Amino acid sequence: MNPPDHEITAEAAVEIEKLDPREALKEMIIYNPMKNPERTNATMGRVEEVIGIIIEKNDKAKFLSDKCKSEIKGHELDEPMTAGEGTAVADILATELNQEQLGQAVRLFYESEISTEEVVAMHKKYKIPVSHLEDDLLPVRGKGARIWDSKGKTYIDLDSNYSATNLGNANPEIARGLYNQANLLISQKEDRIQVARTRFLREIKGMMPEGLTHFYWQNSGGEAVDKSIKIAKAYTGHTGVVAFENGFHGRTHGAVAVTYNKKYREPFGLHNESWVHFAPFGNLDAVEKYLSSGEAKSVILELIQGEEAGINPATQEFAHGLRELCDKYDAVMIADEVQTGFGRVAEDEGQWFASHVYGISPDIMTIGKSFGGGYPVTAVVTKAKISEKMYGGMDGSTFGGNPMAMVAALIATRQMRTLNLPGLAAKRSKEFAAGLEKIKSPILKGFRTAGLMIGIDFDSQENMAKVQEGMKKYGAHSSLSTGPTMRWMPPLVIESDEVREVLTALEKSLKDAE
Amino acid sequence: MNPPDHEITAEAAVEIEKLDPREALKEMIIYNPMKNPERTNATMGRVEEVIGIIIEKNDKAKFLSDKCKSEIKGHELDEPMTAGEGTAVADILATELNQEQLGQAVRLFYESEISTEEVVAMHKKYKIPVSHLEDDLLPVRGKGARIWDSKGKTYIDLDSNYSATNLGNANPEIARGLYNQANLLISQKEDRIQVARTRFLREIKGMMPEGLTHFYWQNSGGEAVDKSIKIAKAYTGHTGVVAFENGFHGRTHGAVAVTYNKKYREPFGLHNESWVHFAPFGNLDAVEKYLSSGEAKSVILELIQGEEAGINPATQEFAHGLRELCDKYDAVMIADEVQTGFGRVAEDEGQWFASHVYGISPDIMTIGKSFGGGYPVTAVVTKAKISEKMYGGMDGSTFGGNPMAMVAALIATRQMRTLNLPGLAAKRSKEFAAGLEKIKSPILKGFRTAGLMIGIDFDSQENMAKVQEGMKKYGAHSSLSTGPTMRWMPPLVIESDEVREVLTALEKSLKDAE
Repeated sequence: MNPPDHEITAEAAVEIEKLDPREALKEMIIYNPMKNPERTNATMGRVEEVIGIIIEKNDKAKFLSDKCKSEIKGHELDEPMTAGEGTAVADILATELNQEQLGQAVRLFYESEISTEEVVAMHKKYKIPVSHLEDDLLPVRGKGARIWDSKGKTYIDLDSNYSATNLGNANPEIARGLYNQANLLISQKEDRIQVARTRFLREIKGMMPEGLTHFYWQNSGGEAVDKSIKIAKAYTGHTGVVAFENGFHGRTHGAVAVTYNKKYREPFGLHNESWVHFAPFGNLDAVEKYLSSGEAKSVILELIQGEEAGINPATQEFAHGLRELCDKYDAVMIADEVQTGFGRVAEDEGQWFASHVYGISPDIMTIGKSFGGGYPVTAVVTKAKISEKMYGGMDGSTFGGNPMAMVAALIATRQMRTLNLPGLAAKRSKEFAAGLEKIKSPILKGFRTAGLMIGIDFDSQENMAKVQEGMKKYGAHSSLSTGPTMRWMPPLVIESDEVREVLTALEKSLKDAE
Repeated sequence: MNPPDHEITAEAAVEIEKLDPREALKEMIIYNPMKNPERTNATMGRVEEVIGIIIEKNDKAKFLSDKCKSEIKGHELDEPMTAGEGTAVADILATELNQEQLGQAVRLFYESEISTEEVVAMHKKYKIPVSHLEDDLLPVRGKGARIWDSKGKTYIDLDSNYSATNLGNANPEIARGLYNQANLLISQKEDRIQVARTRFLREIKGMMPEGLTHFYWQNSGGEAVDKSIKIAKAYTGHTGVVAFENGFHGRTHGAVAVTYNKKYREPFGLHNESWVHFAPFGNLDAVEKYLSSGEAKSVILELIQGEEAGINPATQEFAHGLRELCDKYDAVMIADEVQTGFGRVAEDEGQWFASHVYGISPDIMTIGKSFGGGYPVTAVVTKAKISEKMYGGMDGSTFGGNPMAMVAALIATRQMRTLNLPGLAAKRSKEFAAGLEKIKSPILKGFRTAGLMIGIDFDSQENMAKVQEGMKKYGAHSSLSTGPTMRWMPPLVIESDEVREVLTALEKSLKDAE
């Protein structure tokens, strides 16, 4: 395990590195509206935390912390200091730390001027706990397949925020493009024409499966699914939709209604929606029953079930059979490719979508996550025959396809094409598979890959959780699972030696857990 | 009408202005991945358009265009040129244009390297037409209350993208903050802790109405409404919701279901939702009937109905009566303040929300639009007693409250507080009202203001549309209306002389229409 140097690689930080370390430290401790308007003055809590990370000897760290604290009498530790206090503290640190320590302090303050403890406390205090708060690490920076936490530790990121950061995090081109666009026009509604969208359309149209030519821009995956259902209903003139067991499509009322797990539907009265019909995934007869009886005129599916099914790819027969059934009954086939799109499940070059992998062309596709390079942007994509039946007033969006989103998407997809991302994903997928083949353990039951969507089965949920937790110690961080299945979805830019690191971390953690 | 000089004011553009005009022109015509990764090479169509704008004499413009075109033989006019072609064209322009014209050309190419015609054509070709395409102007830049179009015309913006750009568009601090953040960590899911969110929480908590302390971050207004209903249902253990006639809440299944206009519900089978009960706006008895019978345990409303009601404020009695009814029946009061929040409807200082104007504290509030300074970010906000009943797994979000959104929101709300935005809005509202009082016309029937949400009633929808269209000629651009009511929602940073410009434009357009 040789984590790369904890250097500041971001373009914005180049300026800092040009400075004298004393000056740089002041810049990171004291908020400057011209240079770092996104920050606040540092807290003494963070000063204490940084000292603790840098100085190994407890007594020396305490001595230095106390010296700094004497400058802020009467202040709460976790309140931002005044500029005067910050200057005094920066002077003390500059005097007491050696050059190497000073450089380390600059980097740590650059990444956060607030202590980990305070960030966690604020979240717990002010967050509506609708999801499980993940406070095992405070991510402050990412690059490629790596993330860094507030304590200077680095991990290989096996989540990539559900595919939203397939290109990694800090991306100088995306940062620069967003900066330029924000200095011109930051927001325009979906129904107004726009330069940035034209640029992006030129880029994306060549990436789509056959016939998928018309776009409606949204902000989240759930929203795209919700709107795809509206478009299908408007086109078919029929509300009935077939969805699948173990499918997951998002969190708005419409998206929840077609999501199988009852615990996501029941508390909101969405478990008995008369327009939704669940069929077993893989069962064409069940689908045909709903279509032939006229109970449904649309079908929504993930070609490779992720979230709720622990990576469960449709068979070729099932995927093509569905396409044929939809053709036979003039029904709309909706492929939810929010998570599978843009190279995630590629088995070969050019496979931007699961639809490419299967060689089918759905009537409607939802796309999202990675194509904004981390910026919230999603879309409903459909064919001309469906688009031309739509009409003004049936929907609308303030933020959908805004100029910033389109800039981020243009730059991200351009990079994906330059990097040949599906080709990369396919290669790394094979490397993961080859490595996983070789790892034997009594608690390991098997694995499945669909490109870089990887499901690893354990004998129990407990053992899975133990190994997942244990891997963090060895520098591989994942948070996704379905029952006893651990799910890995690393950034698609993960490199071969990082694949090996992950596999080593798994092996070590398995040994610890056995 | 004295539009300000069409200068490049954006911070990013300062670099351009430092350059020799020839160099600057090349930079704007030829895509440079390091400097302007959000662009493409310019099209000949745009070259021709720019020449046409700069050179008044048709024959001279044609001569110059033909000279440029001779450099790109065999190319489509609306395809990006090669770098070589772009260089040749830039050289021709630099030779043939005088200094002033050259400066103008740099500005026009800076704002767009693609022709208006091509942008319109691309939108028409690839857009699912779920909304009415607005192709009357191609906005390329904004600053304060002004927007500029691709032809160098400037307008006062009376829409502010439904309040999303209350602070205007080009905002150097937001641009810089987003740049810095994108160079560190662009994306993290809603359930993971985060530095940027902590900073923003410190800023926003003091702006909220009493007791509204817990946040769940989302991306769009509709999504926030959809989730607010889920949270209300989970808290009350009851799906029934009272909504109001002429209310508008958004476009996802959940938000559509509580929106009154049947044309938004019917095509999607959402017009007979058994959990939704519509009451006339202002009718407390009707609400009490649903609450006392146990048919509903939540109430959702806009305190000032916008979109569908042409600006219709609740009376004090109705607003307070609803609060009392909700207390009496232990029901949840949801105020949808996506459009009314952050000073839009302020009548006095400190009135960040309509709830402040009315002096009430709803149990759940949705917020959105302007607080991200144009970045897509919204939220459900609620009280501790509701928040503490929520539980992990009931919802989740990939993009909600991501670090970029929180950075934009921190900077925007900080600016709002520094500017005392509610105080400004209240002042300008009075100026608009005083001016509108004085304008008399046989086709004008009256007006209403709620801060800077202004409804102007005409005798017919036709006359309203004629005047709205006519005002563009005089430099005031609005696109919002409800039947015969024109709606103005200018950026809250609009200045007094700009208010006068708008009123003058209205007067002139009324005279033209009478």
